Amino acid sequence: MNTKDIFPKGQKAPAYFTGDAWVEMLITDVATYDLMSYNVTFAPGSRNYWHQHSQGQLLLCTSGEGYYQEKGKPAQLLKAGDVVEIKPKVIHWHGATAHSEFVHVGITPKASINQVTWLEPVNDEEYASNI
Amino acid sequence: MNTKDIFPKGQKAPAYFTGDAWVEMLITDVATYDLMSYNVTFAPGSRNYWHQHSQGQLLLCTSGEGYYQEKGKPAQLLKAGDVVEIKPKVIHWHGATAHSEFVHVGITPKASINQVTWLEPVNDEEYASNI
Repeated sequence: MNTKDIFPKGQKAPAYFTGDAWVEMLITDVATYDLMSYNVTFAPGSRNYWHQHSQGQLLLCTSGEGYYQEKGKPAQLLKAGDVVEIKPKVIHWHGATAHSEFVHVGITPKASINQVTWLEPVNDEEYASNI
Repeated sequence: MNTKDIFPKGQKAPAYFTGDAWVEMLITDVATYDLMSYNVTFAPGSRNYWHQHSQGQLLLCTSGEGYYQEKGKPAQLLKAGDVVEIKPKVIHWHGATAHSEFVHVGITPKASINQVTWLEPVNDEEYASNI
């Protein structure tokens, strides 16, 4: 565990990621709060596929360096302390930079009606265009 | 700023706190996500008043040492990595230990209908009983 890690690293993310990533669920009682929150750790170079959330998603960046990119826009460099408000239905991906681990807390609002739609992987050419 | 701080310290909390505390709002678009999220920094010995949230609250502890106490129960010691799920209408307080700063991210679920009710301060005798 990196000395900067705050929350447990959790389990390997099973799908929709290129490279190694880990997910630890932080909130267990989704029914009461109608939200999900989780810690995501991306190994250097790893990222999730292009995807969208019908009700959006929130990222609270806690360590390392990563990227957030919306379809058709340049990627944004993310560091600890950055907050990303991903609007409903915006196609995007997030992940680590090529040479740094990246950790964020994610929040899925309106969990009971928030549908995620996974699309294609972020290919190496798309990823490399950010470096 | 403490080297462990991740998010900005923000502004002095205006009321319902004993001692110095600071609050930085992390999410601006409450209407879209129907939740609030904020970073709270407690100086050593500071704490909020007894209170309850009609829809509960979530705490993600990021640095230092603090307490969480529900009415009628012993206080729980909190450290970085601890997560507290506060159920709806449970009377509680949170704050720093006597000798450490304490920082947590707070999440207010169902913001559009989540009412907070502030009660009396945690007096020095109640606070000291945890040490």
